[in-house]
Amino acid sequence: MAGNRIGTSDEGQAHTLPNPRQPGQVREEAALNEGIGCRKVTGPEPPAVPGPKIRTRRRAARQSPSYRSPMTNWKQKMEEALAEASQAPAHGDVPVGAVLVDPQGRTLASDHNRREEAQDPTAHAEMLVLSQAARQTGRWRLEGHTLVVTLEPCPMCAGAAVAARIKRLVYGAADLKTGAAWSLYNLPQDPRLNHHIEIVSGMLEEECSILLVDFFKNNLR
Amino acid sequence: MAGNRIGTSDEGQAHTLPNPRQPGQVREEAALNEGIGCRKVTGPEPPAVPGPKIRTRRRAARQSPSYRSPMTNWKQKMEEALAEASQAPAHGDVPVGAVLVDPQGRTLASDHNRREEAQDPTAHAEMLVLSQAARQTGRWRLEGHTLVVTLEPCPMCAGAAVAARIKRLVYGAADLKTGAAWSLYNLPQDPRLNHHIEIVSGMLEEECSILLVDFFKNNLR
Repeated sequence: MAGNRIGTSDEGQAHTLPNPRQPGQVREEAALNEGIGCRKVTGPEPPAVPGPKIRTRRRAARQSPSYRSPMTNWKQKMEEALAEASQAPAHGDVPVGAVLVDPQGRTLASDHNRREEAQDPTAHAEMLVLSQAARQTGRWRLEGHTLVVTLEPCPMCAGAAVAARIKRLVYGAADLKTGAAWSLYNLPQDPRLNHHIEIVSGMLEEECSILLVDFFKNNLR
Repeated sequence: MAGNRIGTSDEGQAHTLPNPRQPGQVREEAALNEGIGCRKVTGPEPPAVPGPKIRTRRRAARQSPSYRSPMTNWKQKMEEALAEASQAPAHGDVPVGAVLVDPQGRTLASDHNRREEAQDPTAHAEMLVLSQAARQTGRWRLEGHTLVVTLEPCPMCAGAAVAARIKRLVYGAADLKTGAAWSLYNLPQDPRLNHHIEIVSGMLEEECSILLVDFFKNNLR
């Protein structure tokens, strides 16, 4: 039932290489400038992500409690992220929430924007859950994991998602001013980088936007 | 003596809008795609960074212990960053070091790459010094501050520098594979973002590169 979860207009839209600047175009431009990452730039497209390993049902049962429903309900995970986001305004932070989901579909970490609370420029929701999840798993490589966030990540957070080697990014509202997973850049799917992330955008977009619009309306008064 | 510090080939090169993709070109392309940050994209170039405020010598002496040499010696700061970088391989980390310098030219924080040590994908040297400095000043806005780092920042770190509103980025070696302050992107000087950073590149480039080349040579054996 993947078609119902991903790819429908109601519950988010999966896309590949949606960079507004066509990738071929970028690569040609970059290749024109000598010394600009030539090896990657002129190389072939990144290899397709390998499919899941075939596991027997018994082995799957031992490894994962959620093997009966390997298709994670991203809508439900976004609701968790929204619940996190709604806690941010209490300490003056922009309501953005994030959840990190492991390959078995379990929520490994969840947090919200704490830039104002912690007075730390790096304390965005995405950064906090990536760090927390890495601490919990004991590994900085979060392969197979999914980052669910209410707002399109900024360049810092999109860059961190690539650095953490996550598999999938699910986001709600687009950020036309600083978004780096579609709007201004598409860092998670830049063919020149050494890791590429599947993106599902527009998940519960309206609910995510309303939280933000209300916050800025109240703070502009 | 600014000409001796910044802008010479020996000690780093100051540049403005050095994105390999010409900014006008990027803006035109982006404008062609509807809804892609139109307000910022079609807007005017960012305003020039205002010059230093004129201060009497007595007032300057009260505010800053280094008023006699307001021109910070970036070469010396890069040597501090290099000393940090050289500590990283002891715990299996890539030798990248960073120093955060306050507007008075004092080193506020210094650290090196700790991704492997902390098993945290966000524990790059730049991220650590930005967080440390914000904790010390008690403010996430690090206006007027300078980030000195031995390697061109990746998208995460360049994005964090923009998010922290620093004034200047000084880096040593270029990173042709993931660099986001010249090589693949120029995030700190993207006219569509709400903050722009002065860049000085190539500071003690050879020393910074040698550390990295030696590290990878030893680790490939």
